[in-house]
Amino acid sequence: MDDDVTFAVLGTGGIGRRTLDVARHKDGLTPVAACDRNGVAVDHDGLDVEELLDATEGNIASGPEADGDTPATPTDDYASDGGLASHASETSSEPGSDGGAAAVEGGSVGDGTASDGVKQAGEDAGIVASAQGEPTETPIDDVIAESDAIDAVLLALPNLEHDFIPRVAERFADASYEGVLVDVLKRSRVIGMLDDRADTLESSGITFVCGAGATPGFLTGAAALAAQSFVEVESVEIWWGVGLKSGYEDNRGTVREDIAHLDGYDIERAREMSEAEIEDLIEEHDGRLEFHDMEHADDVLLERAGICDAEDVSVGGVLDVRSDEKPTTTTVRVTGTTFDGERGTNTFELDDATSMEANVNGPALGYLKAAVLRNRAGDYGVYGPAEVMPSF
Amino acid sequence: MDDDVTFAVLGTGGIGRRTLDVARHKDGLTPVAACDRNGVAVDHDGLDVEELLDATEGNIASGPEADGDTPATPTDDYASDGGLASHASETSSEPGSDGGAAAVEGGSVGDGTASDGVKQAGEDAGIVASAQGEPTETPIDDVIAESDAIDAVLLALPNLEHDFIPRVAERFADASYEGVLVDVLKRSRVIGMLDDRADTLESSGITFVCGAGATPGFLTGAAALAAQSFVEVESVEIWWGVGLKSGYEDNRGTVREDIAHLDGYDIERAREMSEAEIEDLIEEHDGRLEFHDMEHADDVLLERAGICDAEDVSVGGVLDVRSDEKPTTTTVRVTGTTFDGERGTNTFELDDATSMEANVNGPALGYLKAAVLRNRAGDYGVYGPAEVMPSF
Repeated sequence: MDDDVTFAVLGTGGIGRRTLDVARHKDGLTPVAACDRNGVAVDHDGLDVEELLDATEGNIASGPEADGDTPATPTDDYASDGGLASHASETSSEPGSDGGAAAVEGGSVGDGTASDGVKQAGEDAGIVASAQGEPTETPIDDVIAESDAIDAVLLALPNLEHDFIPRVAERFADASYEGVLVDVLKRSRVIGMLDDRADTLESSGITFVCGAGATPGFLTGAAALAAQSFVEVESVEIWWGVGLKSGYEDNRGTVREDIAHLDGYDIERAREMSEAEIEDLIEEHDGRLEFHDMEHADDVLLERAGICDAEDVSVGGVLDVRSDEKPTTTTVRVTGTTFDGERGTNTFELDDATSMEANVNGPALGYLKAAVLRNRAGDYGVYGPAEVMPSF
Repeated sequence: MDDDVTFAVLGTGGIGRRTLDVARHKDGLTPVAACDRNGVAVDHDGLDVEELLDATEGNIASGPEADGDTPATPTDDYASDGGLASHASETSSEPGSDGGAAAVEGGSVGDGTASDGVKQAGEDAGIVASAQGEPTETPIDDVIAESDAIDAVLLALPNLEHDFIPRVAERFADASYEGVLVDVLKRSRVIGMLDDRADTLESSGITFVCGAGATPGFLTGAAALAAQSFVEVESVEIWWGVGLKSGYEDNRGTVREDIAHLDGYDIERAREMSEAEIEDLIEEHDGRLEFHDMEHADDVLLERAGICDAEDVSVGGVLDVRSDEKPTTTTVRVTGTTFDGERGTNTFELDDATSMEANVNGPALGYLKAAVLRNRAGDYGVYGPAEVMPSF
């Protein structure tokens, strides 16, 4: 059996870059394409990941008008809604995904030549700073054009319009792509949008695993498994800890998004805060922000899998921006009743030593590999992380 | 989408009976056939489970010559190797599976009429004591004959020859069965025997999930999931607790099998022990038997899924025959290294309130449902519990 998997990454922000990095530690995963807003790199024999990561380190294509606080101008191919409003609900555990914002935080001084607003090298140049990168105005179409030879595509796109990922999936289907799509950023409403397109994706021969990061993703899967002792699940509590000292600068955009989840805050208010106001708020909390009842897609994904009602799922956690130690242990607790009438709570706990990055990107690639096996077996459609056991 | 699943149970020992019981608590699972050594019950509109369970309670068909200590005479259709030697490695967590031995322990006085050695009612009569049961000499063939209308078959067969389940699977394939087979009793060597038949099963259109009980099964799946944080897994420790006071009488055969795992004991020695010797041994241990380095198929199944080497997996646990409280908490610990070089241990813990029965039969039906969805999607072949996320 041919177990080798070729894959592409759309987006080279935190998650895209780490996906390429983690894949180096996995057997049989060959990255053959990557793109960002302004560039694309394709090599069907396998990208030189080291060169690509070196060239793009601290250097994420932000586009001509991207900005941390105001919407970037949407382009035909790589539209953006400006970041804040789009996925405030899930990035707390995936701060590195926030490629666009991170790039902006990194500074706006390019040392290369911009043509049509595209920086060709250095900061903000993104993938075109790599020897493997080519500038393009249609990065996603460029990857689709190569997709006959690509088994799977990880959509690691920065903050974009709510229906951006569903629309990207549809474009793959329109091109009769037969393969796997996986995304790691998933707000609840997007899942419905993907379900609306399930027939189209299935007809094309696409196996789509949505919400395949840490939460939703890994921890959703753990909840689904832990539920197996029970015939009735009364609650699922997902509680995460993230220590983000060294990653703080790269993740200011995400921290701002998380603030929208605090009592007395919402997306609008968080969006309007100045950097100084955010620093004051963080200072007030001694660097630790604690979140309760976050709007995470785990709820929809567990309900979709028939495990419990969405309202029985709660997600919260603690983000510490002044320490890389986790401020609390990431835990999933599933409480239910067994067929013989006993009530109990099964627990899944991640070691504090496992970073958020390890817990997002390992599972993302695990779900990707599993989806490829299903796709090769002829199993198409839209799946959530509560329905698929990730491969190793 | 038609989500309803019809299923059959081969064997109505502890696991078979409880599978019927647990299925009553699950949506969309309709039992349509069940058989034991001497009888078969089929109703494509759904068996009357309550009647069947009532009629067969404490009353498991043991066959004309079955005996707790000596081999029963194999029949053409339902061969037995006499129990002790066959699956000493995994039943410690599945004591109720030991249908044949349990029946014998229950006594041999039938109050019905035996024809050709088949008791028609009362103790040892088994399924023919039910109003729905019919006597038969070919129970498995009788179920196969009905299998066009059966989505899935749970092989909950008592202690049988090592290749019995693979041969049963082959018979379903020979009859061009297109559906799901699931088994819950799985010693390591059987998995290879199933893999040897994978092409035959796949060609027929069979999706087989092997080792789909608690361990292997539920806990193997938990280990596979917990491994997702890591790029290198160094150890998987599965540790179970079973409290078996009220179930002891029904599970003496299994306790005997477990004894084979104790230091200084082996299958031969355990087989030759008298009941009195076993009681003395249990007394010596104050009713608690502790096991280490058990030969469980979790190791092969995790290696098969690429997670670690079989030798890095250890299975042990504590069986308390004098309490229904678990003597120790069932726990899976997966230790590995993340892509960013950190070493950690992720943990999955079952609440002590969840019985062994809940943790065998819930997952067994969960794997069965998941396998039906895969089968309907055209995904055939042999899978282990580390490769399939059980449905709820």
